[in-house]
Amino acid sequence: MSEAKAKAGLQDVVAGDSSICLVDGKEGRLVYQGYDINDLAGKASFEEVVYLLWYGKLPNVSELSALDAALKQNREIPSDVLELVKSLSNSAANPSGMEILRTAASYLGAVDPNKAMDRETHIQQATKLVSMLASITAAVGRFKQGKEYVAPRNDLGHAANFLYMLTGQEADELSVEAFDVALILHADHEFNASTFTARCTVATLSDMYSGVTSAIGALKGPLHGGANEDVLRMLMEIDSVENAATEVANKLENGVKVPGFGHRVYRSYDPRGLVLKRYAKQLTEKVNNTKWFEMTEITEGVVLEHFAKKGKDLKYNVDLYSGSLYNAMGIPVELFTPLFVISRVSGWTAHILEQYANNRIIRPVADYVGPVDQKFVPIAERN
Amino acid sequence: MSEAKAKAGLQDVVAGDSSICLVDGKEGRLVYQGYDINDLAGKASFEEVVYLLWYGKLPNVSELSALDAALKQNREIPSDVLELVKSLSNSAANPSGMEILRTAASYLGAVDPNKAMDRETHIQQATKLVSMLASITAAVGRFKQGKEYVAPRNDLGHAANFLYMLTGQEADELSVEAFDVALILHADHEFNASTFTARCTVATLSDMYSGVTSAIGALKGPLHGGANEDVLRMLMEIDSVENAATEVANKLENGVKVPGFGHRVYRSYDPRGLVLKRYAKQLTEKVNNTKWFEMTEITEGVVLEHFAKKGKDLKYNVDLYSGSLYNAMGIPVELFTPLFVISRVSGWTAHILEQYANNRIIRPVADYVGPVDQKFVPIAERN
Repeated sequence: MSEAKAKAGLQDVVAGDSSICLVDGKEGRLVYQGYDINDLAGKASFEEVVYLLWYGKLPNVSELSALDAALKQNREIPSDVLELVKSLSNSAANPSGMEILRTAASYLGAVDPNKAMDRETHIQQATKLVSMLASITAAVGRFKQGKEYVAPRNDLGHAANFLYMLTGQEADELSVEAFDVALILHADHEFNASTFTARCTVATLSDMYSGVTSAIGALKGPLHGGANEDVLRMLMEIDSVENAATEVANKLENGVKVPGFGHRVYRSYDPRGLVLKRYAKQLTEKVNNTKWFEMTEITEGVVLEHFAKKGKDLKYNVDLYSGSLYNAMGIPVELFTPLFVISRVSGWTAHILEQYANNRIIRPVADYVGPVDQKFVPIAERN
Repeated sequence: MSEAKAKAGLQDVVAGDSSICLVDGKEGRLVYQGYDINDLAGKASFEEVVYLLWYGKLPNVSELSALDAALKQNREIPSDVLELVKSLSNSAANPSGMEILRTAASYLGAVDPNKAMDRETHIQQATKLVSMLASITAAVGRFKQGKEYVAPRNDLGHAANFLYMLTGQEADELSVEAFDVALILHADHEFNASTFTARCTVATLSDMYSGVTSAIGALKGPLHGGANEDVLRMLMEIDSVENAATEVANKLENGVKVPGFGHRVYRSYDPRGLVLKRYAKQLTEKVNNTKWFEMTEITEGVVLEHFAKKGKDLKYNVDLYSGSLYNAMGIPVELFTPLFVISRVSGWTAHILEQYANNRIIRPVADYVGPVDQKFVPIAERN
């Protein structure tokens, strides 16, 4: 039994094959099933990308219409789930949206009477999760603001319906396009931590809901899903375009990490960040709410210059501009990480399907560094 | 960026250091923090082993008494959790005990007002999970049998209290000892699939409940937690001591896998199996319910002979004899995998504490084997 000691965090360890997503860190390219995200964002809808991730091809008109109908059938939250989501949203313990989504995803699995483990069932479950986790996120947003639940509208696409369910108003065209693009850009990212966690979970041949529940739990961590919240929270604390440059520079001087920069995989630009910055500029100007965008641009300049002086070519990542973009759509900061779920659940479910299709339990080994040959002493004689 | 392609399922890949558990597959030894399980089983209590796994040392009298008090404080299930568990247990969708435990663990996190990420908080949360998941499992067992919830008794130890809450009666001494030993034997097993999944989850700095929820999801899979159920279900299907040898031999002839044998890590005996067989023999004789034990022994003989003829030195594992043992305690088959949770949650939480103490996000890479450079075609032109 030969053993290879991996780098910490399995960095650079090739944990398996996948045909879903190519992250070209050197060239700064992100490719889903052979399609560059720049060819998808703004041209295909999120629903088309969901189909692409699951089936390996872009849908034709009738394939898309079938998926669309299935998604719409799963928009309405069943009353028991809605009650659970409402009571958690109003709980004095103040659970985060991620804790509520994690619990709801697990609950949805428990009350799904179909426990079969075939691809057809798994596609149905994935469809339910993609559709309903968006509705649940909107509901959490409503309840946390002390508002009533807004029922879905089936004449709207996935992105437009989410914004409608969250705000109670039909969103403008540019907001819908920008949100749809944000969903596409976050849809998959190869063996990122939450996706890999989902694959570890289902590699025991556990069910789809277990995989997605685990992934939500992993994405909840600030090292993974929390950075987009952190950017806007930082800017809201500074709360001044004039002071932004000085305050960000001060943070850097004092060794405080500024969120939204760098990536383990991208050595060049994060291609998602470039697209989001474009939409953030457009939308914030259109809705006349440019403060956070301006502050973000100032932050970008200060951070890049700071690291350039040290000879480091640091770039911003996907998290830097999404905050000002989401804010311009009227989405509260507390929902930014749940938004990530709404999108990434498409990738998680695609990876779970891929794992089932060619499964092996994921069970590495540890290097034991603890004590050896301890002599057992009865409790009365212990110090 | 040099990349090492790992074997499928990360087999033999050393994914990190750990001082909690040593699995010596060649010698057939299992060691917790330096103590051989044969020195712990029957001599220390499960509570002492929980302490050992978390703190790296066996507790003295006052340390054990403090842990014991904290566990007892967390035995009673709060009314909202009990209501959730009851409604799921009675749901027409017939969720498994594992689906209910997964949902309850996530819910417990959501309603815990303390969201701090320090060791003291984590130990409190781990204590709650070890204690309350046992109570919840007992409650699920009651509700699924159409019986009422039995409140915990604080004059009993962890093992005795669980059997009391499940059956409504105080268990005999040998049952309590055997159950306590079973809890100790299943408490940890290094980077097994559910534990590794828990570590992946919290390595994003997500919370303790997320880690345990993920681990329950992973353990739910039949390649991991389900094998002990499978053994007894197989025997119940055969349902005859006389026919056992022939029917098991037939299965082997027809290439049907017989559960309870072999292990990825143990090349020699699974040391846990040896201890469980001893207790299973003793207890089934004592309660005069030897049928499943006899059939298990016959199965062992037939399977070993079958593989010996092919030159394979196959041994039984931890799952073979636990079924007849649990059955003799009056535990229904549907709870066997949840029993695994009650025990392994001690190891999961120990590994989560260890991960927090020296954390790095777990993010391997994939080998991309999909299509490249696909040309985007608008939907109307797609086939």
